[in-house]
Amino acid sequence: MTSRKTTATTKTDTKVNNITRPFPSSRKIYVHGKHHPDIRVPMREVTLTSGQGRDEDGVERGAAPNTIVTLYDTSGPYTDPDESVDLRKGLPPRRLEWILSRGDVKSYVGRQVKPEDNGHTATDAEPDVERFPEASRQPTLRAKPGRTATQLHYARQGIITPEMEYIAIRESQRREGLADLVEKQHPGESFGASIPREITPEFVRSEVARGRAIIPANINHPEIEPMIIGRNFLVKINANLGNSAISSSVEEEVDKMIWAIRWGADTVMDLSTGKNIHETREWILRNSPVPVGTVPIYQALEKVDGVPEELTWDIFRDTLIEQAEQGVDYFTIHAGALLRYVPLTAGRLAGIVSRGGSVLAKWCLAHHQENFLYTHFEEICEMMKTYDVGFSLGDGLRPGSIADANDEAQFAELKTLGELTRVAWKHDVQVMIEGPGHIPMHMIKENVDRQLELCGEAPFYTLGPLTTDIAPGYDHITSAIGAAMIGWYGTAMLCYVTPKEHLGLPDRDDVKEGVIAYKVAAHAADLAKGHPGAQLRDDVLSLARFEFRWEDHFNLSLDPDTAREYHDETLPQEGAKAAHFCSMCGPQFCAMKITQEVRDYAAKHGISESQAIQAGMAHKAEEFKQSGGEIYTSA
Amino acid sequence: MTSRKTTATTKTDTKVNNITRPFPSSRKIYVHGKHHPDIRVPMREVTLTSGQGRDEDGVERGAAPNTIVTLYDTSGPYTDPDESVDLRKGLPPRRLEWILSRGDVKSYVGRQVKPEDNGHTATDAEPDVERFPEASRQPTLRAKPGRTATQLHYARQGIITPEMEYIAIRESQRREGLADLVEKQHPGESFGASIPREITPEFVRSEVARGRAIIPANINHPEIEPMIIGRNFLVKINANLGNSAISSSVEEEVDKMIWAIRWGADTVMDLSTGKNIHETREWILRNSPVPVGTVPIYQALEKVDGVPEELTWDIFRDTLIEQAEQGVDYFTIHAGALLRYVPLTAGRLAGIVSRGGSVLAKWCLAHHQENFLYTHFEEICEMMKTYDVGFSLGDGLRPGSIADANDEAQFAELKTLGELTRVAWKHDVQVMIEGPGHIPMHMIKENVDRQLELCGEAPFYTLGPLTTDIAPGYDHITSAIGAAMIGWYGTAMLCYVTPKEHLGLPDRDDVKEGVIAYKVAAHAADLAKGHPGAQLRDDVLSLARFEFRWEDHFNLSLDPDTAREYHDETLPQEGAKAAHFCSMCGPQFCAMKITQEVRDYAAKHGISESQAIQAGMAHKAEEFKQSGGEIYTSA
Repeated sequence: MTSRKTTATTKTDTKVNNITRPFPSSRKIYVHGKHHPDIRVPMREVTLTSGQGRDEDGVERGAAPNTIVTLYDTSGPYTDPDESVDLRKGLPPRRLEWILSRGDVKSYVGRQVKPEDNGHTATDAEPDVERFPEASRQPTLRAKPGRTATQLHYARQGIITPEMEYIAIRESQRREGLADLVEKQHPGESFGASIPREITPEFVRSEVARGRAIIPANINHPEIEPMIIGRNFLVKINANLGNSAISSSVEEEVDKMIWAIRWGADTVMDLSTGKNIHETREWILRNSPVPVGTVPIYQALEKVDGVPEELTWDIFRDTLIEQAEQGVDYFTIHAGALLRYVPLTAGRLAGIVSRGGSVLAKWCLAHHQENFLYTHFEEICEMMKTYDVGFSLGDGLRPGSIADANDEAQFAELKTLGELTRVAWKHDVQVMIEGPGHIPMHMIKENVDRQLELCGEAPFYTLGPLTTDIAPGYDHITSAIGAAMIGWYGTAMLCYVTPKEHLGLPDRDDVKEGVIAYKVAAHAADLAKGHPGAQLRDDVLSLARFEFRWEDHFNLSLDPDTAREYHDETLPQEGAKAAHFCSMCGPQFCAMKITQEVRDYAAKHGISESQAIQAGMAHKAEEFKQSGGEIYTSA
Repeated sequence: MTSRKTTATTKTDTKVNNITRPFPSSRKIYVHGKHHPDIRVPMREVTLTSGQGRDEDGVERGAAPNTIVTLYDTSGPYTDPDESVDLRKGLPPRRLEWILSRGDVKSYVGRQVKPEDNGHTATDAEPDVERFPEASRQPTLRAKPGRTATQLHYARQGIITPEMEYIAIRESQRREGLADLVEKQHPGESFGASIPREITPEFVRSEVARGRAIIPANINHPEIEPMIIGRNFLVKINANLGNSAISSSVEEEVDKMIWAIRWGADTVMDLSTGKNIHETREWILRNSPVPVGTVPIYQALEKVDGVPEELTWDIFRDTLIEQAEQGVDYFTIHAGALLRYVPLTAGRLAGIVSRGGSVLAKWCLAHHQENFLYTHFEEICEMMKTYDVGFSLGDGLRPGSIADANDEAQFAELKTLGELTRVAWKHDVQVMIEGPGHIPMHMIKENVDRQLELCGEAPFYTLGPLTTDIAPGYDHITSAIGAAMIGWYGTAMLCYVTPKEHLGLPDRDDVKEGVIAYKVAAHAADLAKGHPGAQLRDDVLSLARFEFRWEDHFNLSLDPDTAREYHDETLPQEGAKAAHFCSMCGPQFCAMKITQEVRDYAAKHGISESQAIQAGMAHKAEEFKQSGGEIYTSA
């Protein structure tokens, strides 16, 4: 490392301890594949406390439905104490063997990194950050001539890839033995989704083949733990990262990535602008176990010094190849922001608020030509199928204010995105569709309904939407409301919004706030859709709450640190972790404590509610009701 | 003040400066009544910046639709620099003259405060906090024999009280001259609400007469600025305050009340338990410009040392009178938690989670008798009509977990609450109905539909609902999602949930977080219902955002302090407040800046988009589209 470079990654290394510690009472487990035995799917196993299932008198209070709870885990090897973490080596390329064994790809000498890739002129050719070590890099891969390396291609051939089996195991979360609990959850309203009781590898294949789900998995990103985005799977969330010309650094962005996946980000997008874009992305990709998306036009624009009119197809295409070779898993491509739609935005309150959309609108007007992403769309498909980069067809004309919601410009672009979806599918390229934005609640569903129809159920991927404009500083909340609803209606992935939206660049605290708010929204959507097994975590946590198993209550929550901290602000004593009350109501007023006394009272009179609770769920209610009736009549 | 007493209110006095400063660029204005000229309705007037409507080249960028924006203001005299604040004097009893002039009430020597009212035994008779000064108290009022003093009674007589005219002015927010803007907002979906374009005093009267709205306004709380709760008015929010046996003090609760109304709480509930309940409530009532609700059974239970079985009707009735004389505006009465419904909760995951509900369940079981609030309901009505205390019929059997949502116990109680509503109406007593709780999104609407039907459209007042159980520490968000939706469907008031829910007692930061999250939810609901004029604030704020009027952007937001702080974290310079970019994207990537350039480009070619923007809204889009077409064809 030369002296002029920042010590970015060194600092990151010291931070790693903080952001990689395992979750409390949790361990990383791996479930192996059947068709592909080398598959090892990570999950988080939470062990519930024992010995706290008894009350003060030693009466058995009943146990949680399971003493072990399995949770979906996006945090990667970082939370596994058995894995060594060295950011300079990157993650192990566990998927490489699967990719090579399919026989469709070969390594080659990739494009040479150019000074302008990092925003430098030729005379200042080195990035001013530490470069990711050459020795740690994998060979660059692409499909052999005439071959296609996409998951969509394999799915259509009837091939169940290891990625597909991996995903089936991951989505199933070891629910096999819990059929009775799954049976008891609320059935949900899925608005025409087709969520099966059991997620099989064949189901994953069929959904990908149909274009209803995508597996973002660039062949040059063998480090990822495969995941799927589709309306018949768990709702996913994305966290945006990226420095800007004003603020942030490589180290901060890698730190934010590890932080974001710790709290549940299913994918991240690197939206960096300014200098060192290439190197920032390299560090993120080599260390990211989740798919990474980008908006390539941001980097292309940097290469023409920020002047949209000077963008050319050649510069853009070269940027796509640069990023595809690095391993970016999906590209936001604003190919639907057509010249003729730009005037439709003129009467808007807030104009065009998508960066990419506004750049392309300016290019179109300046050249009096059609959007070059649209005119070169088939060439883009040809390139993307070579690496299995997925499309995230950008909504460059999304509304940026409540007033502009669901307007002609927005829906005109969506129609074009639907047409482009079919072009991409023709090329065996995976596609999802981006959605808004700012939408009042009563106009949200129309967005999903139109998208599903126009885009043949290709996965919808929305930014919020924000349900009001009046709360800058709280837009993680204004948008979590819209995100939960649009997820319920059928959106497959929710792009998070942080409290800094509209105001500044998110720091790591904002990233966490945004991720948690969106985990809430995604999970609320899963519950409302009736996703099989989704309610299990709620039920186990609520039972822990009811039984005053505070440790379990914390450990099962989305953010155990915060739950514990808030509890301890008023009751810091260790003994309070077993107390049958909390500081909200105090011992006399605790409804749950009194409820327990009510049940104890009845139990003494020969009714077995505690059995009913032990059985875990409501199926003994009727039995109790009958025996309960006896108390009152015998009095 | 004796030495053994805390210096609570002294400390509060010093805090007052912080929590009473006026909002930036805002002033308190008062709108006077027509029928009742002594009415002065407070509003907050935000003055927008001028001179920032031009771009760098001096081209007029258009102005906001109005240079002055009027906002609904719950903050009371505290944010008016012309009002003196002395917590020991309390607020001026501006409503007293209206109450007396109706000729239905007389003053009398009220019930003597007893040691047990503050949780003390006779030998330790003084509260250990400073008492609210006797000299500052108003005479105690009640209705003359045979008379009724409720707003419902007057409404049914066809009388428009000053309170009703006040509310009509307050809800209208000086929208008279803005008909064209109101016309342009999204029409909304109100699910059968009957929201008029114009809120007249007669409309207020008719809604109260019909029982579809309530005006919580105890004749012994003349300090309030009247407000209304009903589905055809703006959606309201409540903030819970109150110390517990574990934590908090009088000073903190008064501070929290002033803090909560600053950020937008429309009512507060004092849920204190433990010691000094009477005095805490006195300080709050005498200084609260918003209606105050309580759950009287909490205090009654303290009087029997926390043993539910020892509660008696006499103790409870005495507590009701104690609180009614103090001026409590609405009582939560769990009269629907019937003996025969208790067994229905036995199979629940989380039992009974309402404190009041659990206390009554235990009482019922212990005595093998029907809930005494139910058996004495008409006597309660007789008492409440004497002071115009409104009912908030409590949902003692609300679900406390997703698993328990919409179960038999919950809806059995709701049916009884519907029957009790009609009993209360018979007595001219105002009623609202409390609702849940923990409900997954797809099961929320059923709650509103049933409530509206069973309770004859009496206002619904819900706690959240939380849409998942898995996020303790973030339940302001899990519940803001449900609150926004249930508000949209027809709920009239949303009881906030703070981040500390399920974990501890909220401090002032939590109170603010909860209030803002619920202002977001309530406003999102108003927008979705198409409440006339609701979109104005969104539009004006979004236009300020689009035009880089950062100061206006901050000042129009729900929380100007936080918006400004977040912006300044990355761009603290004063010049950045006029910059045409922010730190999110930097100058080159700002979509709004580029959009402006697109518009400028078109303007240079003879198209008047800037006129279109100046006109403020979308109605010139078509005109522009046609002239815009010329550019592209002439190229």
